Amino acid sequence: MNKIISLPFPNRSFLKKITVFLFFMSVTLHAQIDKVEPPFWYAGMQNPELQILFYGKDISQNQVTVSNGIKITNVKRTENPNYIFVTIDTKKVAASDFVFTFKSKNKEAFTQKYSLNKRRENSAQRKSFDSSDMMYLLMPDRFANGNRNNDSENSTQEKYNRELPGGRHGGDIEGIIKNLDYISSLGATTIWCTPLCEDNDAKYSYHTYGQSDVYKIDPRYGTNADYVRLAAEMHKRDMKLVMDYVTNHWGIEHWMMKDLPTKEWINHFDTYTQTNHKRTVIHDTNASEIDKKIAIDGWFVPSMPDLNLKNPLTLKYLIQNAIWWIEYADLDGFRVDTYNYSDPQGISKWTKSITDEYPNFNIVGEIWMQSQAQMAYWQKDSKIAQIQNYNSYLPSVMDFTFYEATTKVFNEDEGTWDKGMVKMYDNFTNDFLYPNINNMLIFVENHDTNRFNQTYGNDIRKYKMAMTLMATVRGIPQLYYGSEIGMAGNKDKGDADIRQDFPGGWEGDQKNAFVKEGRTPGQSEYFDFTSKLFNWRKTKAAVHFGKMTHYIPENNVYVYFRYDRDETVMVLMNNSNETKTVKTNRFKENIKNFKTGKDVISELTFDVTNEIIMEPKSVLILELK
Amino acid sequence: MNKIISLPFPNRSFLKKITVFLFFMSVTLHAQIDKVEPPFWYAGMQNPELQILFYGKDISQNQVTVSNGIKITNVKRTENPNYIFVTIDTKKVAASDFVFTFKSKNKEAFTQKYSLNKRRENSAQRKSFDSSDMMYLLMPDRFANGNRNNDSENSTQEKYNRELPGGRHGGDIEGIIKNLDYISSLGATTIWCTPLCEDNDAKYSYHTYGQSDVYKIDPRYGTNADYVRLAAEMHKRDMKLVMDYVTNHWGIEHWMMKDLPTKEWINHFDTYTQTNHKRTVIHDTNASEIDKKIAIDGWFVPSMPDLNLKNPLTLKYLIQNAIWWIEYADLDGFRVDTYNYSDPQGISKWTKSITDEYPNFNIVGEIWMQSQAQMAYWQKDSKIAQIQNYNSYLPSVMDFTFYEATTKVFNEDEGTWDKGMVKMYDNFTNDFLYPNINNMLIFVENHDTNRFNQTYGNDIRKYKMAMTLMATVRGIPQLYYGSEIGMAGNKDKGDADIRQDFPGGWEGDQKNAFVKEGRTPGQSEYFDFTSKLFNWRKTKAAVHFGKMTHYIPENNVYVYFRYDRDETVMVLMNNSNETKTVKTNRFKENIKNFKTGKDVISELTFDVTNEIIMEPKSVLILELK
Repeated sequence: MNKIISLPFPNRSFLKKITVFLFFMSVTLHAQIDKVEPPFWYAGMQNPELQILFYGKDISQNQVTVSNGIKITNVKRTENPNYIFVTIDTKKVAASDFVFTFKSKNKEAFTQKYSLNKRRENSAQRKSFDSSDMMYLLMPDRFANGNRNNDSENSTQEKYNRELPGGRHGGDIEGIIKNLDYISSLGATTIWCTPLCEDNDAKYSYHTYGQSDVYKIDPRYGTNADYVRLAAEMHKRDMKLVMDYVTNHWGIEHWMMKDLPTKEWINHFDTYTQTNHKRTVIHDTNASEIDKKIAIDGWFVPSMPDLNLKNPLTLKYLIQNAIWWIEYADLDGFRVDTYNYSDPQGISKWTKSITDEYPNFNIVGEIWMQSQAQMAYWQKDSKIAQIQNYNSYLPSVMDFTFYEATTKVFNEDEGTWDKGMVKMYDNFTNDFLYPNINNMLIFVENHDTNRFNQTYGNDIRKYKMAMTLMATVRGIPQLYYGSEIGMAGNKDKGDADIRQDFPGGWEGDQKNAFVKEGRTPGQSEYFDFTSKLFNWRKTKAAVHFGKMTHYIPENNVYVYFRYDRDETVMVLMNNSNETKTVKTNRFKENIKNFKTGKDVISELTFDVTNEIIMEPKSVLILELK
Repeated sequence: MNKIISLPFPNRSFLKKITVFLFFMSVTLHAQIDKVEPPFWYAGMQNPELQILFYGKDISQNQVTVSNGIKITNVKRTENPNYIFVTIDTKKVAASDFVFTFKSKNKEAFTQKYSLNKRRENSAQRKSFDSSDMMYLLMPDRFANGNRNNDSENSTQEKYNRELPGGRHGGDIEGIIKNLDYISSLGATTIWCTPLCEDNDAKYSYHTYGQSDVYKIDPRYGTNADYVRLAAEMHKRDMKLVMDYVTNHWGIEHWMMKDLPTKEWINHFDTYTQTNHKRTVIHDTNASEIDKKIAIDGWFVPSMPDLNLKNPLTLKYLIQNAIWWIEYADLDGFRVDTYNYSDPQGISKWTKSITDEYPNFNIVGEIWMQSQAQMAYWQKDSKIAQIQNYNSYLPSVMDFTFYEATTKVFNEDEGTWDKGMVKMYDNFTNDFLYPNINNMLIFVENHDTNRFNQTYGNDIRKYKMAMTLMATVRGIPQLYYGSEIGMAGNKDKGDADIRQDFPGGWEGDQKNAFVKEGRTPGQSEYFDFTSKLFNWRKTKAAVHFGKMTHYIPENNVYVYFRYDRDETVMVLMNNSNETKTVKTNRFKENIKNFKTGKDVISELTFDVTNEIIMEPKSVLILELK
């Protein structure tokens, strides 16, 4: 900037040319800068404050100026001279390129180009996923290998080895793109991919929760541009892309870990200290300070340094990184990993900052707690958290008590006081605790749990009951890749067993379940049911947003209704091992004057005025008429 | 009153004489009145409205007037001509006797004397039980038979039969009075007796939850005057009397059931309908109307008509009956049976009406729910109930999740994720959900559950751990009679087994555990521990009202502190089957500069600066110095 201002003819067109000239020069001039993050930004954001990290040898000894009349509001130096954090005010700055100049005594100045890009139209008002969606969760390394050329890369340590259960199997973004039509055919409208940013761990990098560069897609998955293309291809199909964001930790191979900006960037103890996993300490008024500290500041595993969200520099960095991805890749939502392992105030600010920018943006947090009150605590505007003057601002939480119930109820034959369908019913009796019950993510399994079909020994009748619940109770259903073709996997054998490759995702796979012809009759039975159910759900507003009325299960038979002014859906679930005759008189407040119900799956019509006979372990989803 | 006004010389002294004359006459004049309830009342109540029920053949055809210038504000007739409900305004009416006159066309008038009595001094501001108390729960029929003359009575159906496990065993009020010093010696400061009002059922009347006259002590327990004497004898000893009040139902033998005041006095269905016991329907936004109706209006058992608290007449009757007993017997608190089986608005009004009269009066409700959020819903000013604009006004709830934990944890040796002491710790992590955590009634058993010593096969080490918890965690400890001498009892064998006679309560009992000499060495070990522990607790303000800090259990060892500005108590509990060395460094935020701790039971002093060795299944209660 100094250089430019000292030029003799500072008229606009000349400045432009000079600027262009300087950008070309910058290749040499910014030689002392190794990293700039965010690498660029966007004009017209709600929050005009932009904190840019410049990393380079002894960079902090410089004075920083910036061109185009932009105002620097803060320059923050840490104990590490290789970092400088420069905050500028982007208010009223149009999309443009400008230049930072770094100058210290007795040394030649150098510059760094920076850009504010133009945002997509209506970017701030972008829509997001909600209970009208069905979310498909997949692990990119294990889903489909669309590009064999990126299976191993020079820049990343771990190489392709499909023989290794916990190794890199080569799945990638291209593989997802190639199978979008398959996913869509299932009735899914949203995809949550486990993380895709670079994870340069030497081992187990396939899960990618230990990221080494949060501004870069792992080259084994593809490029940043590929990720943008994935989103675009999805939007073409009316589908939504959800990024798995990790606020709590990075990987030990993250470039910053080799030269920390400040000791306070991450959480430290005198010796390695693992989190105690007791997130209840956050609300527990009896908790000791040391237990709280270890819960929040303790590390998840030794290879994942724990980010310190109490540090405003770190927090701002993470907020901007998240916003950058939304803008850059045109994202439709976040799933946030280990949400309440972070400093509660920090993670709340992170979440609020994002939803302040994007009021309709949905963020679902992994809140793995034991009770509904504890989970409801974490949803935005929770009355329970209000007891402690806390607000996470997190719009959506994962319904782990629903999940827990689904791991047991279908094997519980007798409907006793708290077993069988009563346990499922009980889960919904506490819905009032949640500020926004429709915005719960409901699931029967994910990449961290036993697979549903494992738990139930591939009894498809139980799968059908579980999927019916997911499709018809309140909330956003989330399906884990492969279950729709009956994939099983045993968590006790290790994570790899629940994260097996999708058959047909690899060239030369003996079976290809992505296509109808490739599916075994067994797989087809799973697929066809799932596809029919969730395609039906796509247009059922009563199921998306309607009221629910349920009846106390009797003899392990659960009956509930979803309805709005236009339609009523009656769901009957016989979880017992016996044929049951269900008298419908008890349900008259919902059946009203309806006479018949057409089952969504069989398309058979049932008389609902008297009684309905239910096969053992069976469901009916009746559209009443 | 008409009669009086029509007299020729209505001067004051003459009226007085006439009034006295009329009272003597009333023996004949009120021949048409069989019941007056409340039988008398008190002057100077906060709520001046008094609803008096008069019951007699065709009484409703009369016009009612009252003497002394007292104002009748409402006369309510129902479809049953034998009832009339007269509401008077007692504001500014001094303690006095006055007369109701009933007159109908062509019939002679008749009168009924009524009294407003003087209240005890400071009656409205009476103190109640709180967390500085220890409550002893006993079943009068099974505790001690102090008066052999009332074992059977002409006016009640069921006769004495001690051979019958579910029969009347003869225990009575006199038996309690005789053993007050015993109870006090245990460190108990409060007694909760299961109900004492008349229960004239032909069978199982010993539990007395199906009452036939709620203004009269069952003659087999004694007289109303005996009950007043019990309270007075307790107050002499600085003890408090808690009445077990039943708002939800009466017994089928209640005199009103033979001639209902109105159909709406109790809840009806077309056919007998039992409650579904699902109290969650009250807050469940998905619940069906029919399930709600059955939960609230369904009967507990066929012999217990379900009171309709939606009916203002019934509600007012129950409010006044409760207040009458407080005033009459000088009560110190209520325990309310099946609290949330009643109409939620009705039971809330009942509770509020009582605490409006007695702002310091404690009422503990039986809220038998599965989660803390569901229980916290029912405590006065609950933020959780506020979500639904509900307030029960109930000051205290029974801590059933604490109880549930105590039925399992002491048999869980390994402290895994959710077993052993972690389960106990977990119970306290949700304390913030309760508006008043000190006002929880904590217990390890009661007259409806398996006995603790049964569950744990009389392993006294486990009993000591449980009692230590009760004596040192937040809340009001409640001990069930007999456990202090090791009594066991198996709920699976029926209620009688958990409600056995206290040895020594009956003339001729072979053993008398009420006295030191009568106790076996085994019984003494239980008694001496219990007595030492709870007598110690009596003066420990830090344990009554102090803060609690607890530490995540490690290896099934649980450590917590109770403290205030003056004292710190450290509790260590080794629930494992191995000797454990507990390093104290982890607890430094509570140990601070304390050097030693004196164990309350052994009176041994321990160095707390380094480590403490704990025997398997053992506790230490250290007063730090």
